[in-house]
Amino acid sequence: MSVMKIAILGGTGHQGPGLALRFAAAGLDVLIGSRVLDKAERAVEAITYKLGESGIQGTGKVTAHTNALAAQQGDLIFMTIPYPAYRALLPNIRADVQGKIFVDVTVPLVSYKPPELEYPQGGSAAEEVQRSLGEGVTVVAAFKTTPASTLAAIDAELASDVLVCGDDERAKAEVIRLIEQIGARAFDAGPLRNSRTLEGLTAMLIGLNSQYKRRAIDLRLTGI
Amino acid sequence: MSVMKIAILGGTGHQGPGLALRFAAAGLDVLIGSRVLDKAERAVEAITYKLGESGIQGTGKVTAHTNALAAQQGDLIFMTIPYPAYRALLPNIRADVQGKIFVDVTVPLVSYKPPELEYPQGGSAAEEVQRSLGEGVTVVAAFKTTPASTLAAIDAELASDVLVCGDDERAKAEVIRLIEQIGARAFDAGPLRNSRTLEGLTAMLIGLNSQYKRRAIDLRLTGI
Repeated sequence: MSVMKIAILGGTGHQGPGLALRFAAAGLDVLIGSRVLDKAERAVEAITYKLGESGIQGTGKVTAHTNALAAQQGDLIFMTIPYPAYRALLPNIRADVQGKIFVDVTVPLVSYKPPELEYPQGGSAAEEVQRSLGEGVTVVAAFKTTPASTLAAIDAELASDVLVCGDDERAKAEVIRLIEQIGARAFDAGPLRNSRTLEGLTAMLIGLNSQYKRRAIDLRLTGI
Repeated sequence: MSVMKIAILGGTGHQGPGLALRFAAAGLDVLIGSRVLDKAERAVEAITYKLGESGIQGTGKVTAHTNALAAQQGDLIFMTIPYPAYRALLPNIRADVQGKIFVDVTVPLVSYKPPELEYPQGGSAAEEVQRSLGEGVTVVAAFKTTPASTLAAIDAELASDVLVCGDDERAKAEVIRLIEQIGARAFDAGPLRNSRTLEGLTAMLIGLNSQYKRRAIDLRLTGI
């Protein structure tokens, strides 16, 4: 049986490399997608170097692709392209991701300091992505609050929890199992529309980082 | 100098008794307010008994009042009246709380299972309370996610963090200091409109309790 291939669209950006590191360290093959192949290749080089340096055995293969090709060849898709740049990509990959689980990691920030979100009247990036890709794609929200630096610090365990939202229970369970494979706790945090709370939470955490001069504030559930 | 008197409107309900216990244990005087004086008296009796049983020394006085009288005599007001019942009270106490800090602890749940919030088009209970009381009152949101049972378990330290939102920095700092007096970590989580995220988070935590068969899931910040 072949190993499941995880595509990371926008895999060269903020959270992409850290996610790739974590999945590859868990033995999964990762397809890094980028708008420009050359950029994906440089990211793969850096990730491969960091994996080698870590001394972790049995890592998955990390390979470079355009976003379109990564979307086509991946079994399960993560998207870490910053808002609103993904809007241009989604129509182009729509056909290639039908029938797949599509994990939206994005947060619709229109300003960083102070953190301001799109959708002041309700809604979320995750729901917009679901509408854009259509009902044949199962959108799940995850890692929305997880800081990039936390993901990239591969020598440390993930101390924060990953909250997962989605309307398809089986897809959500599969994403939770996948996250557990990288050694993090992951929890079913309700329907896809709860992504609005996850995205608001990320904005709040960005504000906390700035207020308390930190860079990787995240959260862990208590009482469970 | 007299000790600061904390009023808890709706202090007989869900989070009220636990908050009263924590504040009194820290040596602060607490005015328990209720719609009906008799109910407040029974709550005070239970709280006083629990405080005595705890063996904690130097506790504050806990006394029973109507909501109106508690609002009038308190230096700092907490409101734990369930949504939307407080709507009837606010106009009646508006004059008595001018110039005071008013801490909104409520979450606008219109359904508990599944948890559904009022204000699907944006906004929050805290902002509604601020509008209702007018600009002479400083509304701060706090303890929105903190489970009642966690607050009431006075023998255990508060392991979860309290996120505090508000538009007045001095008021927020005062509420944070007050919360630190009861031994909890409290953080400035941004402007009052972030209450929407706190309230969404509470709905999400209620969903998690039901999904994972727990009763007091809350959160603690990591990376700080």
